[in-house]
Amino acid sequence: MQIKFVFHIVGIVVLGSALAALLPMLVDLMAGNPDWKVFASSAAFMGFVSISMILATWSERSTSMSLRTAFLLTGMSWMVLPLFTALPFLGLGHGYADAVFEATSGLTTTGSTVFSGLDALPPGMLLWRSLLQWIGGIGILAMAVVLLPFMRIGGSQLFRSESSDTSEKVEARWSVLMVDILLIYLCLTALCTMVFWGLGMSGFDAVCHAMATISTGGFSTHDASFGYFEGAAMQWAGTLFMLSGAVPFFLYIKAARGNRLAMFRDSQVIGLVGFLCIVSLLAGIWLHQRSEANLFEAITLTFFNVTSIVTTTGFASTDYTRWGAGAIGLFLVLTFVGGCSGSTSGGIKIYRFQVLLLVIKAHVKRLTSPHRIVPTTFNGRPLPEDAAFAVLAFLALFVATIAVSTVMLTFLGLDLVTSYSASVTAITNVGPGLGPVIGPSGTFESLPESAKFLLSFVMILGRLEIFTVLVAFDRDFWKA
Amino acid sequence: MQIKFVFHIVGIVVLGSALAALLPMLVDLMAGNPDWKVFASSAAFMGFVSISMILATWSERSTSMSLRTAFLLTGMSWMVLPLFTALPFLGLGHGYADAVFEATSGLTTTGSTVFSGLDALPPGMLLWRSLLQWIGGIGILAMAVVLLPFMRIGGSQLFRSESSDTSEKVEARWSVLMVDILLIYLCLTALCTMVFWGLGMSGFDAVCHAMATISTGGFSTHDASFGYFEGAAMQWAGTLFMLSGAVPFFLYIKAARGNRLAMFRDSQVIGLVGFLCIVSLLAGIWLHQRSEANLFEAITLTFFNVTSIVTTTGFASTDYTRWGAGAIGLFLVLTFVGGCSGSTSGGIKIYRFQVLLLVIKAHVKRLTSPHRIVPTTFNGRPLPEDAAFAVLAFLALFVATIAVSTVMLTFLGLDLVTSYSASVTAITNVGPGLGPVIGPSGTFESLPESAKFLLSFVMILGRLEIFTVLVAFDRDFWKA
Repeated sequence: MQIKFVFHIVGIVVLGSALAALLPMLVDLMAGNPDWKVFASSAAFMGFVSISMILATWSERSTSMSLRTAFLLTGMSWMVLPLFTALPFLGLGHGYADAVFEATSGLTTTGSTVFSGLDALPPGMLLWRSLLQWIGGIGILAMAVVLLPFMRIGGSQLFRSESSDTSEKVEARWSVLMVDILLIYLCLTALCTMVFWGLGMSGFDAVCHAMATISTGGFSTHDASFGYFEGAAMQWAGTLFMLSGAVPFFLYIKAARGNRLAMFRDSQVIGLVGFLCIVSLLAGIWLHQRSEANLFEAITLTFFNVTSIVTTTGFASTDYTRWGAGAIGLFLVLTFVGGCSGSTSGGIKIYRFQVLLLVIKAHVKRLTSPHRIVPTTFNGRPLPEDAAFAVLAFLALFVATIAVSTVMLTFLGLDLVTSYSASVTAITNVGPGLGPVIGPSGTFESLPESAKFLLSFVMILGRLEIFTVLVAFDRDFWKA
Repeated sequence: MQIKFVFHIVGIVVLGSALAALLPMLVDLMAGNPDWKVFASSAAFMGFVSISMILATWSERSTSMSLRTAFLLTGMSWMVLPLFTALPFLGLGHGYADAVFEATSGLTTTGSTVFSGLDALPPGMLLWRSLLQWIGGIGILAMAVVLLPFMRIGGSQLFRSESSDTSEKVEARWSVLMVDILLIYLCLTALCTMVFWGLGMSGFDAVCHAMATISTGGFSTHDASFGYFEGAAMQWAGTLFMLSGAVPFFLYIKAARGNRLAMFRDSQVIGLVGFLCIVSLLAGIWLHQRSEANLFEAITLTFFNVTSIVTTTGFASTDYTRWGAGAIGLFLVLTFVGGCSGSTSGGIKIYRFQVLLLVIKAHVKRLTSPHRIVPTTFNGRPLPEDAAFAVLAFLALFVATIAVSTVMLTFLGLDLVTSYSASVTAITNVGPGLGPVIGPSGTFESLPESAKFLLSFVMILGRLEIFTVLVAFDRDFWKA
């Protein structure tokens, strides 16, 4: 086990976060806010620890990583980073559970928050929350592009030849891919910032919301979330940019390399956009009929909020749970859906539903015609058996995790709707739950400390596609 | 497609129900209750229709059944029988939705009810409800023994060689098996009746409750359900007999044929009993610590109610939802579990969890050691790949059905806890839901008519292991 190599890389990741903490420090300095000292000391501490880690493991800068190291590295990064990035929240007087929950929610791009009174918070703190989501978004893209295909998790068997291969050139390709992905992520964020700013957000709000949008995170700088900003144009812009963070990023690379139609020919993207349109239109017509909103207003609202939940962003432009009992059931189910593989979004993800549909269709056909061979193809290629198996095993674990987490939360005294929706929104990295406590207009502040730690762990489980964490519980993993 | 043969068998099944309706007629006659006329006319109508069906299709008494016919027969029987057996409820002045719901809940051995004021109902009606569950229990055993192995559904790939084979002697074996199973079912019911009667139930209550216990149905003759009867001995007797209906019935046959230890060596039974003991003991200790019940009283309560939900019976000896928030979460999760394959109980069933655990363990090992061969054995034999696949596909459909049903119920105006727990309790054939409306001390009476029809369909879906119904939606099924 290349433990030192893992520490080396984790050190680099922590150093990056230390540098990021300088930004809110500068913002608070300019705003004349004394909080800049908290960010300065957090950055100094993170910088000191991470540089020590990097130097102490300098000789182990291995360039070839074993499979088990990849698992260990992924798990360690996502477990350790929230502990460091929680420091500024601690320094600003929050409890340890709150600080860890907020940092984990940020880095996993979940967007559940323990903070209320956002409008009155100093700018450094608000920027730090948005930055965590933005860093988390890059982290998940790096994982999706470099590590998951290596670990054969997250549907990478289905997309392998497009996003990576296992040839010798693999390290050279990684660097190129990562630089491309980072560039696209930066461009999308810049574009989103400009559009939000042009449509009337302040510069600061535009930057913060763009970072939380492209990363499909969902932290806002206002208690009213995206509902703070007026105008249908703003909502439609938000809808589009949330969607842009939920499509496979390697399709942008394909497009940039000349295959302009790649995005529109991908069965995941077609599935996601089709699903969003059908659900939002139907919900919009239903909402129009039972409220005073005209059809366009209703559809604007449903498109924004449905896209926000399905892409696992978690912004709310209104408290949709007040639309009626049907909306609560609908948004609960939407929480499960998720965006595309290879994007910043979480949840079950579109390709798993598509694979599931294929598998079940084939299984049903085989029941009545046992000797028939049913060919299954996905995205134009035959569906590998182990990919189908991985999807089904993932779903079983997903459901089991929600069940265990729900029972544990009810034993901590929470009501059933809060326990269940908190578990679901954590594992899918969506953000808002249901019910009066953690619904779109509530916060996770009042939950017991143990619930906050539990949900932080569930967010990480969800973000790492469960299996990445689960291998650590296999005794054989630690042998030799 | 052997449509006439299907009608022939369905006719025989309806005729059986017509004969059964004579029993409540006699009881009401003896009690001097005018309702006997309703049962008499229902029996006459069912008798007339069924004898017409049988005679009209007499020439088609085929002895060899095609696979597609097996599917059609299973689906048709469970769709048609509730419509006929609902007649007595209609005759007694209930609405069509109520009557169909109650009959379906009875025949699927679910045990959800739309009736309140059970204590004041005439005996014929109460007996009819219990009889429906008893008939449903026999129906599901027949299906499990004869049809499911043929259709390769419900884990029969795992238990095939023990319960049936596909050799030429198959029809002879069917008859022997069915007679054996019927005898065991009768003996268990008689034994249960005597024990209940000996422990203080009235003769009538003992018969009714024994029929609802062995069939893991859960209809009671009292609003207080099993809680009407006092004494720990009664509760422990109930616990044991519910369990006796939830173990694989072919193990009784093995025991009767001399293999006395078969029951205690079966991994499904060991899993079920182990699970029940651990959960009940832990819950008992927890309950003891937060209530004035002494440890024995607490454990008696938890053993009865946990066993009732896990075996999908649905009796309640107390309103366990008042034990605290933790109990609600626990009982929701318990609703999913289910008993053993080849028993009268429903739910996901123990063997599926055991297969799942094996499959996920193997998958996790393969993630870190891709070239390793991980042998998986279940119940002492290698696990067939298609069995693992069937379990996973079943789970996915199970979850999807709950999601669709929950959303539909919320759009009918029900709150989330009612919608979700009603969907879960219907598909698992348990009976009580959660929340103030359909919880263990409530009824399904106040639900809208459309919700009752929807839930009736979901109960049948659950009872038929989903796939049996799903094949009808495959266009190829109807070809030629």
